[in-house]
Amino acid sequence: MAWSDVGDTICPIARSLAVVGDRWTLLILRELFLGVKRFEEFQTQTGMSSHLLSTRLKRLESDGVIARRAYSERPPRFEYRLTTKGLDFYPLLLSLKSWGEKWGNFESEDEPALVITHRQCGHETGLKLVCPACDEPFGPKDATVTIGEEFRLEREARRSGG
Amino acid sequence: MAWSDVGDTICPIARSLAVVGDRWTLLILRELFLGVKRFEEFQTQTGMSSHLLSTRLKRLESDGVIARRAYSERPPRFEYRLTTKGLDFYPLLLSLKSWGEKWGNFESEDEPALVITHRQCGHETGLKLVCPACDEPFGPKDATVTIGEEFRLEREARRSGG
Repeated sequence: MAWSDVGDTICPIARSLAVVGDRWTLLILRELFLGVKRFEEFQTQTGMSSHLLSTRLKRLESDGVIARRAYSERPPRFEYRLTTKGLDFYPLLLSLKSWGEKWGNFESEDEPALVITHRQCGHETGLKLVCPACDEPFGPKDATVTIGEEFRLEREARRSGG
Repeated sequence: MAWSDVGDTICPIARSLAVVGDRWTLLILRELFLGVKRFEEFQTQTGMSSHLLSTRLKRLESDGVIARRAYSERPPRFEYRLTTKGLDFYPLLLSLKSWGEKWGNFESEDEPALVITHRQCGHETGLKLVCPACDEPFGPKDATVTIGEEFRLEREARRSGG
């Protein structure tokens, strides 16, 4: 399956991956959530080539994840910011941060690279998942997944080479 | 920056991306969370080539995200399962599912491809982030990010070409 075909699946995970299933794109999102807005700084902090970065930014813009605004006319220069659609990747970035902090082979003396503070309560915050129905924390062992009929048929068709 | 150098950064997001910053790897994780265990089914459901799939599975195994177990000796056949380290990607997958459901251009008549039920309360569950300190829901606009001293120096060094 080519990634251009990914819209052909009903799976929402695959549809998300069609937009952000790429480490460079996710690093750009990290920078945007850190408040970085300009091309040169994205390039410096990600180490991407100018061409690759430009391609990824255009893609994010056409996907509606970021918007750009000219801050200089001569030479033409743009600033990029997350749209509402882009800001909705926040849980994804928090999940990556949380996993990396736990499993990223840090030394005990390493200080945290990123500390997130909750404005309302003033404390350090992070990833805590609760069930929207009962507000209890939950994980994969507390939940069952059911595959919907349409996705089941899609998967069945793949098995029969369809 | 090559991805092999990614361990050189103190950023936990980049360290996570060194392990799962790849859409194929994330699709394999989706399959594992759906209960798929076998090579052929991973291949069928992701459309990956046998070579690519094999490479990704080996990498996930060496990263400690999955473990394999022989279920047949002749011919040698293996089953794969998520380790504790792998199960900790659950919030990441939930985040991808949630974003895709909201922004994945579904038609209103499309039924959900994946329904997750919370065993304890019996209701449909999904992504709800709350602050671990005060248990209130929060998003990017309710939080400030502080960059730690070591990461600040790392970023500063990149700016001066270090």
